Formats: sequence, structure tokens, C-alpha cells
Amino acid sequence: MFGCLLSQKVAQAVDEELMSTQGAFSIDQLMELAGLSVAQAIQKSFDVSKYQRVLVCVGPGNNGGDGLVAARHLSHFGYRPSIYYPKQPNKDIYQRLLQQCKNLNPTFVDTDQFDSHLQHETDLIVDAVFGFSFHGQVRDPYQNVISAFQHTHLPIVSVDIPSGWDVTTGPTKDVSFQPQVLVSLTAPKQCASHFEGKRHFLGGRFVPPALAAKFDFDIPDYPGADQAVEI
Amino acid sequence: MFGCLLSQKVAQAVDEELMSTQGAFSIDQLMELAGLSVAQAIQKSFDVSKYQRVLVCVGPGNNGGDGLVAARHLSHFGYRPSIYYPKQPNKDIYQRLLQQCKNLNPTFVDTDQFDSHLQHETDLIVDAVFGFSFHGQVRDPYQNVISAFQHTHLPIVSVDIPSGWDVTTGPTKDVSFQPQVLVSLTAPKQCASHFEGKRHFLGGRFVPPALAAKFDFDIPDYPGADQAVEI
Repeated sequence: MFGCLLSQKVAQAVDEELMSTQGAFSIDQLMELAGLSVAQAIQKSFDVSKYQRVLVCVGPGNNGGDGLVAARHLSHFGYRPSIYYPKQPNKDIYQRLLQQCKNLNPTFVDTDQFDSHLQHETDLIVDAVFGFSFHGQVRDPYQNVISAFQHTHLPIVSVDIPSGWDVTTGPTKDVSFQPQVLVSLTAPKQCASHFEGKRHFLGGRFVPPALAAKFDFDIPDYPGADQAVEI
Repeated sequence: MFGCLLSQKVAQAVDEELMSTQGAFSIDQLMELAGLSVAQAIQKSFDVSKYQRVLVCVGPGNNGGDGLVAARHLSHFGYRPSIYYPKQPNKDIYQRLLQQCKNLNPTFVDTDQFDSHLQHETDLIVDAVFGFSFHGQVRDPYQNVISAFQHTHLPIVSVDIPSGWDVTTGPTKDVSFQPQVLVSLTAPKQCASHFEGKRHFLGGRFVPPALAAKFDFDIPDYPGADQAVEI
């Protein structure tokens, strides 16, 4: 399926190197390409005519930022994203990504509408709540979101890792939902070996081969000009 | 072919609005998506097995920045870009985009190698020298580059506008080369009506419909998840 799986520590080191003086990427660039790859993986997996109403669940960190970028591209692709973003940090980049979404007039979902919106107005869920640096207990307002992921029959697309999973060991006692699609970013994390959904994509077609070699992971052959590849 | 063509003044206003508080895009994001669309248009037009050696001619401003981004993506797509970048501004973004290219080990071409490299080691030329804000006379070191564009039999892909053309009236007494492919960014500029090459693409799938409506230009239907559309 794929070569070496990244631990949390190595994943952090890879991100740091990409944004170091040597790697020279800005967070804006990396998030743009990551979010675009998520949107492309969705476009490859879910026909826009059948899965138009996409509920994007956005967490407070970089995983959420990837979700906001994906929501924007999905809107350009003809989907109708709605956004649940219960904690909106003041950090400049998140505020800008949010404004970019707002300019496309998506629906914003409040916490008290969340369950009803998911049940009645959603064809597909994007899980952009927590990424590989998450650890510990899931707390509100995200507990209700993860609980919905546990119980829904709608397909879920998880960004980088299924939110609430342990980055090393995967499903936990409390969080064991399986997304239908997983989009690993840069390289799959260790928990990806527990993924039992239908399709696994890799995004992040920006990794210099020398960096992949240094950290001992593979870059698969992406098709054509695509930003996401099924692995 | 397409609706309204943008004047220099309107093109500047559109760019300013995209990066205003309201538009909220950073130059990093816009340049990333613009350069990616150029690389995608090249991938759609020139088979990587026949046109692997791409000479990217990079000017001193934002058009050059788009070219650096395109060069990087082309490298990931399997092309072997070489880069001619005779004036490298100290501005942070250009230095970072340059470093990102360097990390992929392209060939860098010096001014005294330029003619020979173009003649003997190039299958395809990318013209990312001047964009829509250029006016006046072409001066060295770019005079020699534009002169090469005038005389070469190799196919040229121009980024946004053919370098040295008048943004309104197109070919001039001194600069009248026709690129084989033109990749207009955001919307075609007025001079695009004088384009007589083979394929015309539009890139910049980030324009909010409300902004296009305000400035009275069309957003065509892009196929699937593509970042470039033939118009």
C-alpha cells in the first residue's frame, strides 16, 4: 500500500523542515496545496451531482485551515459547502482563510443547528477537526462532532488523520469511526495502517525528493498534473 | 472565445481587490495557484516525454514569480525545467520561491549560456518575463531574451501576456512574437485579442463570482478539479 508511515515526531520534523529557511515554504503555500489536494480527492471520489452538500467541520488548528481551503476549492468545483467552525482563532491566516470562504457565500452552521444540519442538509462530511498533533481527550464543542462521526451513515472524508484517533495506534476506546476516504498529507501517519475505509489518497505534491529521502518515506507517482494520488 | 477583456487599469484593480481586506488572499496563495495553473496548461499541451526540457525565463516581478512556481510544479510533473533568472530581487517572496526551486535541483542558466542553452538543450520555452504592468522599452538583459523569442522555432508558453507586448494593443514594432500557448491569469487582458497561437488557457480558479460580476468579466466552466481551462 505504501512505504514507511510517519510518527508524530517525524511528521512534525518534516513540517518544520518544509517551512525552514532551507525548505522555504510559507504556511500559506503549504495549506493552499494541502487543501486543494483534499478537494481534488473529494472530486475524484464523490460525484458533485450526488454529493453536492458538503458539511466541512473545521477545527481550531492547521487541520482546520486545510479544511477551509478545501471548502473554498469545493465551492469553485460546484459543490455547496457548509461550514461548521465553532472556535475561530484570531490568528491572521485563519481569519483570511475564513474571509476567503465568506466571499463565496457558503452556509455557516451554528452549534445548535449542527445535528439537524448534518442529518437533513448534508450529503458528505469533511472531517478537518484535528490533525497529527492532537493528543489527549476530545472536549466540547468537538465531542459532539466526533460523536456524530461515530453514529452517522453519511460518508466522511478525513483530512490527514481521522479526528480523535491516536496518531500512532489509531482508533481509541472513545473514537473509532472509519472515514470512507482518508487524505493523508505529505506522507501517511502511523495510524493510517488502521484505516479500513474505501479509498486512501495522498496529497502534498510539494515534497522535494531530497527531503523524502532524508526522512525515509516514499513519494508515489502522481497522475498527470493532479495534486492527489490514490495509494 | 471569451467575454470582456481587461484593461491594464482594471487588471490592477482586480489584483488589488483580491489582496484587500475584503478579498483576503495573500500574494503567496495567488502566485501558487497562478503558477500551478500555468504548469497544468503546459501539462495539457506538451507531452512530458517529448517536451521534457523546459527553459523558464523569469522576469524581475510577479510574472517571474508565477514562472518560478510553474517551474517547481513542472519538476514535480516530471519535466526537467532549467531557469534563466538574470535579475533576482531581494524581496522575500522571490527569494523563497527561488529556494523552493533550488531544492529540486534544476539547471540555472547564466546570461552567457542563454543562447546556446535555448538552441541546444531546450524543447519548450516558458515566457514569464513581463506581465500586464509592463510598459516602455525592453532593456537588457531582457532584450536578448525577447529577441530570442522573436527568432526561435521552439514553442513558447506565455504567462498572462506575451512579454513586451503592449497590454492594450498587443504586438509592437519591436516585439511581435506569437506564443504557441497563452495562459491568461484571472481574466484575459485586452491584448489577448491579438493572440494567434494554438491554445489559449485561463488560470486563476480563485476569483469569487461577486468580484467577477463587479468588474464585469466572465468565469468560464473549468473541467473537474482543474486549475486551468481552455478558452
